[in-house]
Amino acid sequence: MLQNSQENRTNLSELGEFGLIDHLTANFKPKLKSTVKAIGDDAAVLDFENKHTVVSTDLLIEGVHFDLAYMPLKHLGYKAVMVNLSDIYAMNATATQVTVSIAVSNRFPVEALEELYSGIELAAKIYNVDVVGGDTTSSTSGLLISVTALGVAEAEDIVYRSGAKPNDLLVVTGDLGAAYMGLQVLEREKEVFKANPNSQPDLDQYTYLIERQLKPEARKDIPPLLKELDVKPTSMIDISDGLSSEIIHLCKNSKVGANLFEEKIPLDPALISVCEEFEIDSTMVTLSGGEDYELLFTISQNDYDKIKGNPNLTVIGHMTAENEGMHLITRANQKLPLIARGWNSMNKEEN
Amino acid sequence: MLQNSQENRTNLSELGEFGLIDHLTANFKPKLKSTVKAIGDDAAVLDFENKHTVVSTDLLIEGVHFDLAYMPLKHLGYKAVMVNLSDIYAMNATATQVTVSIAVSNRFPVEALEELYSGIELAAKIYNVDVVGGDTTSSTSGLLISVTALGVAEAEDIVYRSGAKPNDLLVVTGDLGAAYMGLQVLEREKEVFKANPNSQPDLDQYTYLIERQLKPEARKDIPPLLKELDVKPTSMIDISDGLSSEIIHLCKNSKVGANLFEEKIPLDPALISVCEEFEIDSTMVTLSGGEDYELLFTISQNDYDKIKGNPNLTVIGHMTAENEGMHLITRANQKLPLIARGWNSMNKEEN
Repeated sequence: MLQNSQENRTNLSELGEFGLIDHLTANFKPKLKSTVKAIGDDAAVLDFENKHTVVSTDLLIEGVHFDLAYMPLKHLGYKAVMVNLSDIYAMNATATQVTVSIAVSNRFPVEALEELYSGIELAAKIYNVDVVGGDTTSSTSGLLISVTALGVAEAEDIVYRSGAKPNDLLVVTGDLGAAYMGLQVLEREKEVFKANPNSQPDLDQYTYLIERQLKPEARKDIPPLLKELDVKPTSMIDISDGLSSEIIHLCKNSKVGANLFEEKIPLDPALISVCEEFEIDSTMVTLSGGEDYELLFTISQNDYDKIKGNPNLTVIGHMTAENEGMHLITRANQKLPLIARGWNSMNKEEN
Repeated sequence: MLQNSQENRTNLSELGEFGLIDHLTANFKPKLKSTVKAIGDDAAVLDFENKHTVVSTDLLIEGVHFDLAYMPLKHLGYKAVMVNLSDIYAMNATATQVTVSIAVSNRFPVEALEELYSGIELAAKIYNVDVVGGDTTSSTSGLLISVTALGVAEAEDIVYRSGAKPNDLLVVTGDLGAAYMGLQVLEREKEVFKANPNSQPDLDQYTYLIERQLKPEARKDIPPLLKELDVKPTSMIDISDGLSSEIIHLCKNSKVGANLFEEKIPLDPALISVCEEFEIDSTMVTLSGGEDYELLFTISQNDYDKIKGNPNLTVIGHMTAENEGMHLITRANQKLPLIARGWNSMNKEEN
């Protein structure tokens, strides 16, 4: 799982800045009608006709957001795009274009950047977005990726964080916590590898968790699913920092409270099993772990029948009046206040 | 001129990630009609009606693009915005929004970031753009700024790098070379300061050059001026890497050649005087120096009368057939090939 750095090495200086950009983006042919001009001018030109434009941006920094000891560069490129597309889908919009800037130190050969860009290219292909620009520069240390994603939506379809009402149902897509526990497994294996570089880990039982960490998928399917179900959420956010933080964001922006029911939080069986192995509370993991890139949204109770039984969607609670506060209702029917990093701090560093 | 780091210091950790973003962007109230939703959701929402959207992005990295020994943080924030707006104006578009992401190490107190953001805010105010998003994160070393700029234009007004024709006139705005020589003056003073921290430099005669380096202004005025003069350039680019590189970009994208006349290149008297002092050729400085953030464009000869005598615009050459190549015609009437970093390498690092 660790990278092999003994392969072909072409120094970045052999290509130079302009050569490098041309080389890395040679495969990036625009495919969308809205992309009038992609890479190769002072700016990209886009035609969204009469629709609204949606824009989001995120930085990923080596040593803060990722560790190249277990994050293959191709996955990193893929993930950098996913993190940003997730924000576009959280507006109930269609992602259309990304710009990707990287800063990189000389320790990376051209082949490493090709790997990184192959992940970006794969993500762009699968998610049907065009790479329309970016910047490539040297860094004094490490690798940094800055992605800006653009999307498009009819004005009336856009969903903000601010529209939730008391009694609305709180709904989440997919299952939670797996990406965080995937990271714990990878961190443990890194320590094992350091102690004994010849050890051959058997990670089969952790495949799902590790994939959720290394190759997350943004929920491109949800905005069209909601359209098909004829449901417009009253508020929506993506889950990047853990369920607890995101519920608090929806509540604060919408000026409501919330009750989250512990027993309703969707967990994959692999997550339950690894939490037992690590002796860590699975609810705490979902509340504070983060990097799920699922969507969290609220709907009117009148729409409940439309989503009932959909395997992608789970009702995990409901909104309340603002003065009732934000709470987790435990399996034991205890009512605990939700705090920004979960009801029990995991001492996770801010990132 | 060096920063005083003895002032109030509030550690970044005292605010935390969310607190920091809220704190730094508290003054950023959107003012444009096209900004539907600015900071505070998963993504910004913009309404460009039926116009085309223009997008550009740039990274600025400590130790590569700037040196905090002589770059005040407020100026750095201002410059980071300018660098990106310049790309939007180079499309003959109106800049409307920016996103600003920063990665910062713990050595910067909150007050330093306030300075940085005050420069961003000032630039946004003067250039009439809204700050609509961004990301703030920790870095393992130094300061990094990633800006994405958005703009808007009617489809028929957009000017690419690719439309120049043989016999078109080559026109530049303002004067060239000052930012590069401003940097040389600052580098020299830094060495003097290192040798004797009590020296009091008299930089009055270099004020213009230093301002061009530390506080460049993007040419917001040029797209409306061209409209007023009823001139649509056939091609356009902004001058960030030196005149030589930019002429080559226009030629390659337009499949034409060019003759640049040394005697026509606009120079400020302060530039001429400092080049004499540093014993450096002023033409070489304009060809290879960079960071001018002026606009370089081509127009049909039929439009010459419309721009003739305008103090903002100087005709410096003309385009030729592609097979005639790209040349500098010297004052001595020598014909020298233009190369990417000037006709005589300045050994400037790629950035």
